[in-house]
Amino acid sequence: MNQIIAIIGGDARYIELIRQLNALSHITTIITGFNKLEQGFTGSKQMDFEDLELKTLDAIVLPITGTNGAGKVETVFSDEKISLSKEWFQKLSKPTPIFTGITNEYLNNITKDTNAVLIPLLNRDDVAIYNSIPTAEGTIMMAMEHTDYTIHSSRVIVAGFGRVGHTVANKFSALGAKVSVAANHIRDLARVTEMGLTAIPLDKLADHTGSCDILINTIPAPVIHKEAIKYLPPHALIFDLASKPGGTDFEYAERRGIKAILSESLPGVVAPKTAGKILADVIIQILQERKGGLK
Amino acid sequence: MNQIIAIIGGDARYIELIRQLNALSHITTIITGFNKLEQGFTGSKQMDFEDLELKTLDAIVLPITGTNGAGKVETVFSDEKISLSKEWFQKLSKPTPIFTGITNEYLNNITKDTNAVLIPLLNRDDVAIYNSIPTAEGTIMMAMEHTDYTIHSSRVIVAGFGRVGHTVANKFSALGAKVSVAANHIRDLARVTEMGLTAIPLDKLADHTGSCDILINTIPAPVIHKEAIKYLPPHALIFDLASKPGGTDFEYAERRGIKAILSESLPGVVAPKTAGKILADVIIQILQERKGGLK
Repeated sequence: MNQIIAIIGGDARYIELIRQLNALSHITTIITGFNKLEQGFTGSKQMDFEDLELKTLDAIVLPITGTNGAGKVETVFSDEKISLSKEWFQKLSKPTPIFTGITNEYLNNITKDTNAVLIPLLNRDDVAIYNSIPTAEGTIMMAMEHTDYTIHSSRVIVAGFGRVGHTVANKFSALGAKVSVAANHIRDLARVTEMGLTAIPLDKLADHTGSCDILINTIPAPVIHKEAIKYLPPHALIFDLASKPGGTDFEYAERRGIKAILSESLPGVVAPKTAGKILADVIIQILQERKGGLK
Repeated sequence: MNQIIAIIGGDARYIELIRQLNALSHITTIITGFNKLEQGFTGSKQMDFEDLELKTLDAIVLPITGTNGAGKVETVFSDEKISLSKEWFQKLSKPTPIFTGITNEYLNNITKDTNAVLIPLLNRDDVAIYNSIPTAEGTIMMAMEHTDYTIHSSRVIVAGFGRVGHTVANKFSALGAKVSVAANHIRDLARVTEMGLTAIPLDKLADHTGSCDILINTIPAPVIHKEAIKYLPPHALIFDLASKPGGTDFEYAERRGIKAILSESLPGVVAPKTAGKILADVIIQILQERKGGLK
């Protein structure tokens, strides 16, 4: 059975995403917000936002960023202004999956009591873990660019042992860095120790930053505070991978002359093709499951 | 006993090298060819090349590149023109270690029948292996910059399993790449297999390049020839780490539209501080041994 999927806006990752969807014979894509892109897509139909016929759609893919607080959709490859409203979603005549990277209160509210089935992909463990690979590689690249020493033998502290922290600790350790992980949960500290890395209780972080070359935060909370920054050696670097506004006291770091970088959406920068394939794989899998089961 | 070491020219690595030597109380450094460097060195005496008193020196450190074929010394941090002659070396009144990275016929000839004891550091296994770490990290950085996919899961072929090839294969594998190694010796192919990587007899390389994303050469011989390049997919990259002129048919790669990069002296680019420390450590060790033994 043929499925029609509308892609509304998106960044470099979406080029691969659209290509992967078009490679499947049972999927037709309608793309909106890509008119400034030089390359075309074999198998995609370009359409203006107003011309989309919602009744005919089997799924909608929004950008990773979803909408802003006022419903505006980010269209990197178009000047078209696209805004989503409750009225728009009310035109859906059947339950329709709406894929987004992240969601917010606005998006949650306007899709409520409509046929929209909101699926925030980055909330899923599988997507978050796959995405953590390009995130970790991007962090390695930044570390190489900003230091005059090797990652091998450098002293790295990773704050947080969630989906991103675990991967980042793994990769830096694989390259021969001396990795410590600061985490709260006893279970995480046990796993860190099992991996041959140094476990630091998060509330003792400041006791260890005195011998740290690269401090990497993955926790979306103010954990890289004055105390932790105070003891860092002057050459140390801070990479904050947590979502905006990060978990670092950037003002204090600057006052101490320590370079601190809030790095967003590394997968899209360092490996848009891989990141697009990750999204395509999970979207295809979810659509497959819905066809078989739910629907 | 105090030792006087003259450093004649050098690149960014030599900043750390000089700093490490100066940190030792029994060593005094005289530096020549660094007058354009903004930062000073506590403990170094700046001197013009002509003013050096060879009789007073316990060792001389030349740049990694040694001299060119006409005896000219590369001075990155100075406009001073420095050339070494047989007459100059004849002024040495006692056997004196002359450290260089690499040597050439000119340098070999002019030091012959003088008190100069030429020590080409990059010929040493320990230096070459330590240096292979920043080389491999630099290759990883280039791979990240030139691809839109992750190193994880990418298909990498390393040609050569010497001191550099072994490290490069290790590091890419540690990041999750699917690594194959092309080598001649049965012993190397056995070790590659033991490491869980795919072993390819070097003369069968062309049979495997059809499924290769990144081809890395470490052999200073024309092994990445037309046949090997012919089957590479169009998106593939070639990094040639072998010393000039590399082992790649660059002309043919360009004709096929495949990006091929001859990358020289990655340690000095990606990690000058670590590379300088590697040199300092081995120079200090050799001087120590000579003091105890030979001399």
